[in-house]
Amino acid sequence: MNRRSFVRNTALTGAGLTLAMSNPASSTRPIDRLRIGFLGTGLRGQNHLDAILKRADCEVVALCDPDASMLASALDLCKKGSSPNPVIYTGSDQVWQEMLIREDMDAVIISTPWEWHVPMAVQALERNLYVGLEVGGAFSVEECWDLVHAEERSRGKLFFLENVCYRRDIMAVMRMVREGLFGDLIHLQGGYQHDLRAVKLNDGKQPYGGGVEFGEKGYSESKWRTIHSVHRNGELYPTHGLGPVAMMANINRGNRMTHLTAMSTQARGLHDYIVKHPQGGASHPNANVRFALGDVVTTMIHCQQGQSILLQHDTSLPRPYSLGFRVQGTAGLWMDINQSLHIEGKTESHRWESAGAWLERYDHPFWKAHAEKATGAGHGGMDWFLINSFVEHARRHEHPPIDVYDAAAWMVITPLSEMSISQGSAPQPIPDFTNGRWVNRNPSFAIHGDY
Amino acid sequence: MNRRSFVRNTALTGAGLTLAMSNPASSTRPIDRLRIGFLGTGLRGQNHLDAILKRADCEVVALCDPDASMLASALDLCKKGSSPNPVIYTGSDQVWQEMLIREDMDAVIISTPWEWHVPMAVQALERNLYVGLEVGGAFSVEECWDLVHAEERSRGKLFFLENVCYRRDIMAVMRMVREGLFGDLIHLQGGYQHDLRAVKLNDGKQPYGGGVEFGEKGYSESKWRTIHSVHRNGELYPTHGLGPVAMMANINRGNRMTHLTAMSTQARGLHDYIVKHPQGGASHPNANVRFALGDVVTTMIHCQQGQSILLQHDTSLPRPYSLGFRVQGTAGLWMDINQSLHIEGKTESHRWESAGAWLERYDHPFWKAHAEKATGAGHGGMDWFLINSFVEHARRHEHPPIDVYDAAAWMVITPLSEMSISQGSAPQPIPDFTNGRWVNRNPSFAIHGDY
Repeated sequence: MNRRSFVRNTALTGAGLTLAMSNPASSTRPIDRLRIGFLGTGLRGQNHLDAILKRADCEVVALCDPDASMLASALDLCKKGSSPNPVIYTGSDQVWQEMLIREDMDAVIISTPWEWHVPMAVQALERNLYVGLEVGGAFSVEECWDLVHAEERSRGKLFFLENVCYRRDIMAVMRMVREGLFGDLIHLQGGYQHDLRAVKLNDGKQPYGGGVEFGEKGYSESKWRTIHSVHRNGELYPTHGLGPVAMMANINRGNRMTHLTAMSTQARGLHDYIVKHPQGGASHPNANVRFALGDVVTTMIHCQQGQSILLQHDTSLPRPYSLGFRVQGTAGLWMDINQSLHIEGKTESHRWESAGAWLERYDHPFWKAHAEKATGAGHGGMDWFLINSFVEHARRHEHPPIDVYDAAAWMVITPLSEMSISQGSAPQPIPDFTNGRWVNRNPSFAIHGDY
Repeated sequence: MNRRSFVRNTALTGAGLTLAMSNPASSTRPIDRLRIGFLGTGLRGQNHLDAILKRADCEVVALCDPDASMLASALDLCKKGSSPNPVIYTGSDQVWQEMLIREDMDAVIISTPWEWHVPMAVQALERNLYVGLEVGGAFSVEECWDLVHAEERSRGKLFFLENVCYRRDIMAVMRMVREGLFGDLIHLQGGYQHDLRAVKLNDGKQPYGGGVEFGEKGYSESKWRTIHSVHRNGELYPTHGLGPVAMMANINRGNRMTHLTAMSTQARGLHDYIVKHPQGGASHPNANVRFALGDVVTTMIHCQQGQSILLQHDTSLPRPYSLGFRVQGTAGLWMDINQSLHIEGKTESHRWESAGAWLERYDHPFWKAHAEKATGAGHGGMDWFLINSFVEHARRHEHPPIDVYDAAAWMVITPLSEMSISQGSAPQPIPDFTNGRWVNRNPSFAIHGDY
């Protein structure tokens, strides 16, 4: 029996038990100090680095980034923190492969531009590392399979770093779903609705605004992310919206996504922004760029157990931030846009009720136990829970709660949505990356223990 | 030059003018007293009858319904009102055809079960009547063409009675759209999200609740509407959500809907309701009914000018009423679920602002002029505006603001969504019922005059 099937079997037999403060698979002594390498030390990588450096159970042994300035900031963090002497890998786009052959690393955190995610994760898995992979969409169905096969053929494990799964309201709603308050799930919604215009276009000196540059002349995300809006039209960033609701719908654990169809609007927002910006204008070279990405991309996903999931990607227009969650079942629904819910027999008939008191009442045990520590961490504290979960699982080499099958199923939405849009919204089958094991896999995210 | 092209040409040349309190096409003296016949005197027909009876410019000359009890209530309304002696048509399902050959009617209002809408409207148009047709979805693409051809080959006119186009907030937002506050439109949403379980299932004596009967044993809508949930799976009631946003997007007037794709969830709500109801239970005969209609049906529509329209049909689950409107353009968006909007440069960056003050400021001239009269009328007053618009247009035999092309384009969503769902969400082309005239037609809804 290998470790993975042991973990699975333990989870199965332990499903009915409450094992407070310990995970059922914790059969071996955890690593005292997890030795971590960082692939990518940009702003997101530095967030993770900062969180890791605060922990006594981690040591940062290596940093890799071709960007000298980002690397210098990261090294500065290390020197001020608990790991003053990480080995540095820089100077080329391929130097990360050298870092991965080190013998003294237990884990690696990958926070690089999207196109590097799968190649790096695959090699890290092949090196039997515990891999934390930042989120994003895939480029092809094939690379999602590559990711799955790399884990299945190694002793490495992939933890997909979808932080929104740890959002406080999301975890409370997930608890409500599991306790049956909404009945059986029927329809779910999520999305990434975030005005990123000043992220995708900046002045090349700061991460936010001040100009309309991108690519070589851009800084931080505008350096690498914006080009995807130029060339691609699809649900480019599906996981923040999809991950949480996929977990609630037990995708890959008794349920699976079967097919999707996607639709895009015209692309107007980024061009308008360039033309109207004081540092832009109609004669700015970027005013000639034709953006392929529709301003709003809508994707409908069908699930084996009869649910639909609606995703909305909306990052190029002026708008307030909203992940647009809706969780609806046979007994009621919650929406985050109006911070309200309705539960048959428990709230007034045909009326919304403010969700606040419900979210407090169903506050997830993780948050109850650790909210204080999370205060001040990124994205309202959820990043603390994400990194804590990653580290605690990695120290025990446990099967990740957000695993390689989740990563593949969620990331594949991107290329499939691109294909659907390019074919006039034709439906696309979604592969079963578990090859049938979804039938017997059990939910494990935030069920046992306290991480 | 026939009346229709005269109206169109007048509208074109008059587009830049403000013609307060008169419509540009009012070239002939209006009929003093519009003689109206009613096909269908159920609860919705009685709403319309009540509104008509309050007007000095209308006379009810005929009532038709095979249901003796509904007919008696309608006749009672007439006797108490301004038209004590309408001719009655009853006794068979086909007697309406006799009513339509009367020579003394100017107009007819059709408020019958969905399956009668098109056959009745077609014959009424062929009789050159001014036809008010209640909303609903069609059954086939062909019957939508039948409707269009019937008007094009006659002097009759079809006014599609979509009341939500007259909702106060909708008309204010439409004004904001037209004045460019949201920029160019990108994405629109609407729907029919209304817990109709106690409408679809009742005790056979009252229109709402008290039991789980439908069909022969049901009362009012449960008598005829519920069977559609048994046999059909699609966007069965598209127009309340679609009509208002289609008007904003200038569908059939410089824009058109090109194709759609639809997806359905499992059907659970109605069965659960029957089983859990005190008058139902697992052994009630209706517990054996298999409902085809998915609890949530989502439809995405693509428009020629690059917009997407998202529709949600959700009538079998416990939930608060919400038509779920979202109107989004290059400069901002409005949503009704959180009663908020965001307008670039006018509201705080990245933040929602309560829509209340904006809706007051952009209150539509129709509402400013007549809000007092509308008080107490159906559905928050919008029904007054609907019937007023119908009567005033009919008295002048003017081209309706919501016309046969709108009716066809909106009603066809139903059969196309059914086809899409039955083909695994395959996209379906949406016919151009104007045969190209959408290119030159101009917006006319609530632009001129005060009706």
